[in-house]
Amino acid sequence: MEQYFVKQAITTNNLTIEDQEIFRHAIKVLRHKNGDVIYLVDPTEKLFKATITNVAVEEKQFQVDLELLDWASTELPIDVTVACSLSKKDKIEWITQKSTELGAKTIIFFSSKYSIMNWKKNVVEKKVARLQEIAKNAAQQSKRRVIPEVIYLNSLKDLVDYKTEANLVAYEESAKQGEISLLAQTLNKNPKSTLCAFGPEGGFAPDEIDYLNQNDFLSVGLGPRIMRAETAPMYFLSVLSYKYELTVK
Amino acid sequence: MEQYFVKQAITTNNLTIEDQEIFRHAIKVLRHKNGDVIYLVDPTEKLFKATITNVAVEEKQFQVDLELLDWASTELPIDVTVACSLSKKDKIEWITQKSTELGAKTIIFFSSKYSIMNWKKNVVEKKVARLQEIAKNAAQQSKRRVIPEVIYLNSLKDLVDYKTEANLVAYEESAKQGEISLLAQTLNKNPKSTLCAFGPEGGFAPDEIDYLNQNDFLSVGLGPRIMRAETAPMYFLSVLSYKYELTVK
Repeated sequence: MEQYFVKQAITTNNLTIEDQEIFRHAIKVLRHKNGDVIYLVDPTEKLFKATITNVAVEEKQFQVDLELLDWASTELPIDVTVACSLSKKDKIEWITQKSTELGAKTIIFFSSKYSIMNWKKNVVEKKVARLQEIAKNAAQQSKRRVIPEVIYLNSLKDLVDYKTEANLVAYEESAKQGEISLLAQTLNKNPKSTLCAFGPEGGFAPDEIDYLNQNDFLSVGLGPRIMRAETAPMYFLSVLSYKYELTVK
Repeated sequence: MEQYFVKQAITTNNLTIEDQEIFRHAIKVLRHKNGDVIYLVDPTEKLFKATITNVAVEEKQFQVDLELLDWASTELPIDVTVACSLSKKDKIEWITQKSTELGAKTIIFFSSKYSIMNWKKNVVEKKVARLQEIAKNAAQQSKRRVIPEVIYLNSLKDLVDYKTEANLVAYEESAKQGEISLLAQTLNKNPKSTLCAFGPEGGFAPDEIDYLNQNDFLSVGLGPRIMRAETAPMYFLSVLSYKYELTVK
């Protein structure tokens, strides 16, 4: 059963849905009829069972009866930011989709020294909007309560403005030198929020690592194998889910 | 610096490399010259530093002096099999590449009830060979010592022939019912080998789950969010790496 995000907080027992994107998908594509059930999530992260009561095709809207559900949240109990060096379109779209499925709250793309590209000022808004749309769709598909925010930074330096309780940078050189304990050490302190920065295929430049380290980003290794730039953030998010959401009862 | 797999065990201090794929990539594409260094891994998982001593362009071969390196292995200390329901070409290629980066030893694709396709007998060999090639390239890129084996099974039933010490099936219904402890419980027993089966987008059929359960595959939840079919194996492999390769010193 599919889920949609609505833009306004739901405070009533029924609702007329005028959002054209929802209308098109639920009524035109999936051909829902009176009596069918969809799920709605509002900006306060509340989940509702919505039974369709009246489809007005001419007016391009439909009505639903609502029932608040007390199902457990699907959100990670830690606010996670993944900050990835800019890469090709398909890779960043992929990172956005997968990071959303895996529970990231914020997805940052930044330009760094060895990035293969950066975005010119005049295209940033359009490109971020496209990624934000991918995040929304992935959040709906994975049944999340929150749409991750997608942010573009023209400079790695600006990343310090987004610092969390536990700030990390995945560093290949750390991994090569056998660094295997700092991620686990950090997570064992049960931070409420964390950010990890991931470099481009060519890695971070030494002065970029210095800058991050000086700003209290801890260099961590993510195991002995060399992961592609888009794989490392998935590793990080999966580990956080395991650590925070799965447990031995 | 790039790494190549050679087909025969290395027992000498120098070698003439006649493998045309290695020749093409190292000499034609990357234009290596005398004195350049590449790395070679042989079928016994030994890693060698190979210094190029003589390039014979006409004969399409080159010679190297070899030095055995005692670097720590990059292989997961647990043999992991991911068994994924068959999907579209780009998805299974992607699963093969990422599972290799993340350390899988065996990658199985199988046809199940809700798979969107299966492979006809006459194309299996060619398709598996293509995936095996992707696994080899990803293994070289991620600096592994082993190329994962890619296997196709025409029936989910045959999966029992590949059972390991700890056999699991990622089951959405288990996750929905709040199952959060069986994966962690299983890993806390430190098995030496494990297999996890992952269903298609439409999930496993109930009788498929029954069959797996009856054959001692434990149904496990992988957290509260719905992951796409190709994301769940990455989650599993990342968790295994965290659990077996990262630790608090």
